[in-house]
Amino acid sequence: MVVGLTLNTSQGAFRKFLPMFDRVLVERLAAETMSKGGIMLPEKAQGKVLQATVVAVGPGSTNQKGKLTPMSVKVGETVLLPEYGGTKVDLEDKEYFLFRDADILGKYVE
Amino acid sequence: MVVGLTLNTSQGAFRKFLPMFDRVLVERLAAETMSKGGIMLPEKAQGKVLQATVVAVGPGSTNQKGKLTPMSVKVGETVLLPEYGGTKVDLEDKEYFLFRDADILGKYVE
Amino acid sequence: MVVGLTLNTSQGAFRKFLPMFDRVLVERLAAETMSKGGIMLPEKAQGKVLQATVVAVGPGSTNQKGKLTPMSVKVGETVLLPEYGGTKVDLEDKEYFLFRDADILGKYVE
Amino acid sequence: MVVGLTLNTSQGAFRKFLPMFDRVLVERLAAETMSKGGIMLPEKAQGKVLQATVVAVGPGSTNQKGKLTPMSVKVGETVLLPEYGGTKVDLEDKEYFLFRDADILGKYVE
Amino acid sequence: MVVGLTLNTSQGAFRKFLPMFDRVLVERLAAETMSKGGIMLPEKAQGKVLQATVVAVGPGSTNQKGKLTPMSVKVGETVLLPEYGGTKVDLEDKEYFLFRDADILGKYVE
Amino acid sequence: MVVGLTLNTSQGAFRKFLPMFDRVLVERLAAETMSKGGIMLPEKAQGKVLQATVVAVGPGSTNQKGKLTPMSVKVGETVLLPEYGGTKVDLEDKEYFLFRDADILGKYVE
Amino acid sequence: MVVGLTLNTSQGAFRKFLPMFDRVLVERLAAETMSKGGIMLPEKAQGKVLQATVVAVGPGSTNQKGKLTPMSVKVGETVLLPEYGGTKVDLEDKEYFLFRDADILGKYVE
Repeated sequence: MVVGLTLNTSQGAFRKFLPMFDRVLVERLAAETMSKGGIMLPEKAQGKVLQATVVAVGPGSTNQKGKLTPMSVKVGETVLLPEYGGTKVDLEDKEYFLFRDADILGKYVE
Repeated sequence: MVVGLTLNTSQGAFRKFLPMFDRVLVERLAAETMSKGGIMLPEKAQGKVLQATVVAVGPGSTNQKGKLTPMSVKVGETVLLPEYGGTKVDLEDKEYFLFRDADILGKYVE
Repeated sequence: MVVGLTLNTSQGAFRKFLPMFDRVLVERLAAETMSKGGIMLPEKAQGKVLQATVVAVGPGSTNQKGKLTPMSVKVGETVLLPEYGGTKVDLEDKEYFLFRDADILGKYVE
Repeated sequence: MVVGLTLNTSQGAFRKFLPMFDRVLVERLAAETMSKGGIMLPEKAQGKVLQATVVAVGPGSTNQKGKLTPMSVKVGETVLLPEYGGTKVDLEDKEYFLFRDADILGKYVE
Repeated sequence: MVVGLTLNTSQGAFRKFLPMFDRVLVERLAAETMSKGGIMLPEKAQGKVLQATVVAVGPGSTNQKGKLTPMSVKVGETVLLPEYGGTKVDLEDKEYFLFRDADILGKYVE
Repeated sequence: MVVGLTLNTSQGAFRKFLPMFDRVLVERLAAETMSKGGIMLPEKAQGKVLQATVVAVGPGSTNQKGKLTPMSVKVGETVLLPEYGGTKVDLEDKEYFLFRDADILGKYVE
Repeated sequence: MVVGLTLNTSQGAFRKFLPMFDRVLVERLAAETMSKGGIMLPEKAQGKVLQATVVAVGPGSTNQKGKLTPMSVKVGETVLLPEYGGTKVDLEDKEYFLFRDADILGKYVE
């Protein structure tokens, strides 16, 4: 099942962004801006945030037999992204990233 | 189903351009020439428009079993293009781009 | 169905050139030598002609199952060629180009 | 069967990290800090530890037929890692490594 | 059906050369040594001869299903060779070239 | 059938090393340290020993159909290694090498 | 059917070398050391001998279906080798070469 991301267009109407094939749209978690001891971290020391929330998923890709391979992540799940790769996508002035389902390293469940 | 782009030939007759296999012909949306505050943007600051309208789609490609893989976008849909790739095509002095179906990142639905 | 290009041999006899597998033999349309305003264009400004007429088509290639994949263009059709690629072939002092069926970007129908 | 790694979140709650597809999460054994003769080894001489304990395994990847290829290692097993490759993953300030199941060289059994 | 090239061994006996798999042994046509106007051409101006006669063909290669893919050229046919590629083979002090069946661009039929 | 290499752990207990998938663990034969005429060879002149004894074999790899491809060498066999490739593995201070089954060039039988 | 090369071990016993998978062990024919006119050729002018005798053949490789692809050459046959490639193998101080079955260009039959 494809789950899209609802966007507010400037005209007050709504539209949805649907990733295609096996693509997953994620939003990176906010970087930690404070150290454990409560000291403000300069931007450089904040590191690259590899945890992200899945906000939209494509329908999956079809294999050579023509059958749909189901996606392995769901909207709302927290995932671990690889350090490199992914495509930056700006949707309504907010930064998202598209990753192939198979490139996501793992997920966190509660 | 293949859907072509109708072109007006110089002789007043019509002809259609049909993309082949899994190719999609798109027309990029116009770049925003004004900032949100209403100030004219210089061409450099306008950025590359990654949203485009599908104007023609090929029949799809056949997989190793000889079966046609259906296209995932339709004429009229607004799609998100990758930042790189695609083939510029000039049809009747208008600029279009051909992309493989699988290279289109996502689409916007209302 | 393979359709060859009939050639006049120097001895007055005829012979045909048949492209092999999924190859398509095309003849590029003549470059426009005049601007829209009726001014002669120097050769450099004429650009590379990407439209071509199909003059011969191979039988198609066989897939891994041993079945023939039919060709997607026919002799006489006008096609859009990619800017790069193709093999120049001189047949009877005339310049033709061989392209793989899958490398042809699209075709024009009336 | 996927087996995740239980993590203590900072809020006292628990959550699990589940590797995806055929990924294996391992924890390298501690480097030997003493020589056989009982002398402290400087960090450089300690070498790279290639033995690791499996702490979480993904569900396996699906082959072209859509069938799941089972994983060949289990949580708790000691494995031999290749000298290069793998992705460093920091989970709760502890260093782990993700490897594809097929990249693990061998395992030790008792 | 494999068709070999009969060779005269130095001892007056005969032996045949059989290309293997989907290889085709060809003999390039003689370069034109005279211009159309009857003037002797220096060797450099003679160009590379791309037309050749098939002198021996292998049995064809077997596909992944284990079935033999038949060859698409026959001994005696005139073919068009690609400008690059092929393996020079000296058989009885005469120069031949081996090409893969799929690399031959086309053939001439009467 | 997987056959592992029995190792003596430092605590007097035993454990086995099992290569994974289609990997083969070999031990190179000792280099010849004397010439045929009985003269001691300097280390450089001893050459790289390409003969090795198989000490452990993996279970084999599974093909795309999910079926196990059996290994082609057995523990105890003498094999010929390729000059390059293989992964050095130190097990209990002894040097072994892991090779993919398909990379082993041949074997010696009596 | 695998056919190995019988070797005399230094202890007077015999052993055989069996190539693995689709490998073919060949012995190059002796280079011609005299010109046609009966003059001794210096080593440089002798050229690389591309004809060889097959001395041992592997069992063949298995395709993706798990079926053995039979070898296309037999022990005793004279083959034409490609100019590059192959692995030099020294067996009992004699120089042999291993080639993949598919890399052998052709064979000579009487």
